[in-house]
This record gives sequence, C-alpha cells and structure tokens, in this order.
Amino acid sequence: MGIENLPRTIEMTESADGRRTARIVDQRALPRDLSYSDVKTHREMIDAVKTLALRGAPAIGIGGAAALALYAENESGADDAAALLSELETVAQSVSTARPTAVNLSWGVARALEVARVAAAGTAAASAVADALVSDVRAMIEEDEAANRAIGAFGAELLGAGTRILTHCNAGSLATAFYGTALGVVYAAHRQGKIDMVYADETRPVGQGARLTAWELGRAGVPCTLICDNMAASVMAAGKVDAVVVGADRICANGDTANKIGTYGLAVLARHHGIPFYVAAPTSTIDASLAAGSQIPIEERAATEVSACIPQGVEVFNPAFDVTPANLITAIITERGVFDPESV
Amino acid sequence: MGIENLPRTIEMTESADGRRTARIVDQRALPRDLSYSDVKTHREMIDAVKTLALRGAPAIGIGGAAALALYAENESGADDAAALLSELETVAQSVSTARPTAVNLSWGVARALEVARVAAAGTAAASAVADALVSDVRAMIEEDEAANRAIGAFGAELLGAGTRILTHCNAGSLATAFYGTALGVVYAAHRQGKIDMVYADETRPVGQGARLTAWELGRAGVPCTLICDNMAASVMAAGKVDAVVVGADRICANGDTANKIGTYGLAVLARHHGIPFYVAAPTSTIDASLAAGSQIPIEERAATEVSACIPQGVEVFNPAFDVTPANLITAIITERGVFDPESV
Repeated sequence: MGIENLPRTIEMTESADGRRTARIVDQRALPRDLSYSDVKTHREMIDAVKTLALRGAPAIGIGGAAALALYAENESGADDAAALLSELETVAQSVSTARPTAVNLSWGVARALEVARVAAAGTAAASAVADALVSDVRAMIEEDEAANRAIGAFGAELLGAGTRILTHCNAGSLATAFYGTALGVVYAAHRQGKIDMVYADETRPVGQGARLTAWELGRAGVPCTLICDNMAASVMAAGKVDAVVVGADRICANGDTANKIGTYGLAVLARHHGIPFYVAAPTSTIDASLAAGSQIPIEERAATEVSACIPQGVEVFNPAFDVTPANLITAIITERGVFDPESV
Repeated sequence: MGIENLPRTIEMTESADGRRTARIVDQRALPRDLSYSDVKTHREMIDAVKTLALRGAPAIGIGGAAALALYAENESGADDAAALLSELETVAQSVSTARPTAVNLSWGVARALEVARVAAAGTAAASAVADALVSDVRAMIEEDEAANRAIGAFGAELLGAGTRILTHCNAGSLATAFYGTALGVVYAAHRQGKIDMVYADETRPVGQGARLTAWELGRAGVPCTLICDNMAASVMAAGKVDAVVVGADRICANGDTANKIGTYGLAVLARHHGIPFYVAAPTSTIDASLAAGSQIPIEERAATEVSACIPQGVEVFNPAFDVTPANLITAIITERGVFDPESV
C-alpha cells in the first residue's frame, strides 16, 4: 500500500480513432467506484468542472488548459492557426469562468492561450497549434506533480515524529495531477515515518473529505480517521492535533487565502488551541492582482447540495469557499519554499 | 403560521383497549413525514431513545419517566405495589442508561421512581402505582412546557430588535414536550418582533438542524436559513450573527456544559468574533454532582451514522457531544432566570 495505488487524476490520452482526449477520474463516483471519463470537448470539460467530476484547484487549472487543447483537437473547423487562435480566445472566456474562486482555472487557461499564441505566430497550420496545446498540457501535468513533490518535501521538514495532522476537504492527489498539496506534505512526511494520524474532515456539503481524502489516504496506507466538520474543535481540545494542513484556491498579495468552506473556522480553532495552521499550494495559486481576501469572488452553489429535502419556508446558504486572513496562517508551503503568509 | 402548528413531542394517551401508552413524534421521519409512534412498553421506549426517534434532553427525560409508567401499566405482572416497586427499580437501571450524556434521562427516571416509592408506601395496589406514574408523566409534560415558556421569556429579554440568531442541533419544541429551550427563546423573541433570521446549523452526522430545526422554524413561520456546520464561522465573520443560542444535555457545577457535538467549536468561534453565546436549558439539566465538564460521559455512536461507505483502512470517530467550558458561555438561561455560568 502506497501512493503508487493512487490514480492519475487527469491525463491526455489518444482514443482509438487517433484523436487526443483527456482522461479524468470521475470523482463523483468515489469512494464506491474508481471510474474514468474520456473528455473530448471543451464543453464536456466545463461540465466536468462545474459538476465536480474534476475538482481541486491545481487539477482544474490543468483541466482549463486541456479544454483549449480539446477544442483545438476535436472541435474547431478553423482552416489555419490564426482562425483557430481567434476561436480559442472566445473558448477561453467560457472555460475560465466555469468556476469563479480558484485562480488556477484562469491561470491554466491563460497559459494555454499564450502557448496557442506563440504557436500560431510560428506556423500557419491549425494542427500545429493543437499539437502545442496538447504538449503543454502534458508538461503542466509533469510540472504539477514535481511542484507537489517539492511542496511535500518542504512541508515535511516542518513536522516532527508522531505528528497528528488535521486536514479539510481534499487537497490530495485527486485535487492535482498526482501526489497532492496538503496531502503531498502528508505523503512526504509519512514516507519519513512522521505521521501518526490524519484526521480528515468530512467537508460538507459535497463530502470531499469523507469521499476523497479518506479514500486516497486509505488506499495509500496512511492512518486516517474520518470526523464530521463539527468534531474538529473537540479533537483539537483533546490534544490530538499537532498541525492543520489545508490547500488553497486563491492566495492574495497580502496572504489572505480562499479555500473550501470551513477552512476559516478551522484556522480560528487552531489559533485558539495553539496549533500551527499551514496552507500548502503551488505558486500558481497566488493571485498578486488581488490585494486582500475581501476581493476574492466566492462561489455559491445550489441548495440541493446541502439537502434534497428543504423544509417549506427555509432558505439555504451554500458558499463553497471562505477566506482565511493571513494573520491566522502560520506559513504557506509552496514548491519554492515555505513563506510567511504576508511575504508571498 | 405559528407555534400552534408544531406537534406535541410526547403525550400519554389511551389506546382502544383502555391501556395507557405514550405517543411520540417519530423524529427519524422528519422532515419528510410528521408521523407518530405509539410506545407501549419500556423496551420500546428504550429503542425510541437509542434510535433517536425521541431525542432532545428534556424530551428524553420525560420519555424515561414514561418508560417506567409504561412498564407499570402494560408489562408488570406484579400482584401488589411492593412487588411492582421492586421490578421498577430494575427497569429504572436499564432505562436510565439508554443514553449516557444527557442527565435529564436519569433525572426523569429518578423522579418517576420516587413517585412510585411514595405511591407504593400509601397503597397496596399495583394499579395505584401505575396511576401515579402516568399522572406524574402528564405533570412533567406540563411543567416542561411551562419551564420552556419561562426560559423563552427570560431569553427574549436579552435580545434586541433585528436579532440574527445562530443555533446548533435542535433545542426546539421537538427536543421538549413543547415550545423548546433555545428555540423557546427564539419563539418568545419572534413574538416580540425581534427575530430577523435564525441560522440553523445542519448538525452532522444526524442532521437535527437540517431535519428538525429548519422544519419546525419553517412550520412556525420564523425566518430560517440552513447552513452546513462548517459555514458558521464565515457567517459570523460577515457580521450576520448577533447571538448564538443552544441547548444543553448536562451542565456541571462549575458551568461547563455538554451539548451536541460542534457546540464547543461554535463557542470558540463566537468568542473570536465577539458574539454572545447563550445556553438555554431547564434546571433539570444541571448536574451538581459533577464538578467539571471532564467528568461528563460522552456518548460515541456508530460509524455508519457518519457514512454508509467508509473507505478501506479508514477509522471513524463519532462523538455525539462535546463540552463547552464555562468561560466561553456568556450566560445560562433557565426557567428560574439568567445566570452567569459559574454561578449555576
């Protein structure tokens, strides 16, 4: 049992007819089934991102770039590179707005568009632009794994023997191409024999902790205890948590960090109990254009995610993210090192 | 729309054959169905309490007393009052240990046993003991509602116009004979026009907030917004909560209070955001025999409550309650008035 048992979250593959498509783990089916979807068009990729079949900030960054590659490969009827580039600029708009909070999505789309621009400047063939886009998605996947392994190595240095981690949502291998950010820290530290337990918050309403984090830790052979989100405080009070490690969807210039709803509350609880609170994320999650967390758009999702049976006369509020202010974050762990949140 | 639309949670009724039974709202069926169960024996009452068909500290206190009445009425073959009393002493043991955390259960059982003792001392007839027990359950139901209305009146005085309340679990009419404790405060304040919104925490894993609190507030015409437990912190940070009001399962001599899992975390969050944190409970919830919260037994429930699909190699920790230290409680609202938690 080890991380070799974890699936690749997203890959560029070739279908029987020679068309290149994206193959993703359909995370809606976990933990019951490990099943894959072949995503052939940018519309299908947008659907996968919106329905959370593909989720996790780094993974949807790659998915965003892949959406442009899929458009170029399988959808465009453009006669030449210039016409394709013009189409891709429109496609990029709809892809990058599929979900608002994680900056990685628009980062991945912007990177792909720049790759297309460079390719189109050097060729007249639309197919050459498609080739460049597919190659770059493959490069992003490799870079993502390398970044996560670097995050893991830097993060593991912060942890001592016998560490009990609490994590929220899934910032694991399933949230990235492979290996994970917050769970990358766990995997690296576990390999060094430092992890006694990982408490995985269930993470309502979608249950990424219960369905994904618990599944991947179990599969990787890392000790894991699943708790409901509202149990974190009493686990902390019992002295069972040495560090909280979470991922991020967007980190502002001042270090304020958006992550899955519930993260902010955990940061307050960690501070109250004197427990270090770490954010693990690649530098592609940093959005230097936003000065502070209040500027981050927070996605609100459907009431039906919270309950299939809403009593009459009752409203539902379902924000998918919250913002943790920099002053509650002990350090931000990136592939380039560990930073004070105010100095990112 | 008003509290007149809320059901009586538990009543002593008479079946067609003249036997007296307890009629309870089966809370497992809510919010889809408002259905009732006729509970005829002490075993059925224990099952109802263990399976959460009947739940809520004050309600299970009444249920505990009713269990003894049902035994005397429908199960005992004792020839006389003394023999019945002896049987009731054994029955009392199994009823009062059905659930460990709420002190009201053993309080209700102890009260019924005392009623049986007094009755047995004055009569030789077993049926007279049964009559006394049934009468006292009816008296408890009336006293409970009166206490809740007093709690509501005292609590409403603490709230100003336009108050936004956050509550956890269900300390509502459904947790009592009628009217509720924490929601008793809400109903009294709502009648005075003071309630702008009640945020109801979903309350995983059993969902008493989503299923019961939202249902009864909707039915009573009180504005209610359902949130997941992990959203409370960001709702507080957004300045949308003026007071947290919760119930209690046991209050120690020093004011430390056990309540539904997640309450402690809310108290920490309320303190961080400068929001008053009120506990509303009848004095029967006070257990002066315990000096501090660390002595309160915390029930752990089945992993299957958290998830029907636990990934391989994963543990589940499912404590049903946590303890909030007195220093995080602004005040305890009882039917005798509002107290500083350290002075209960």
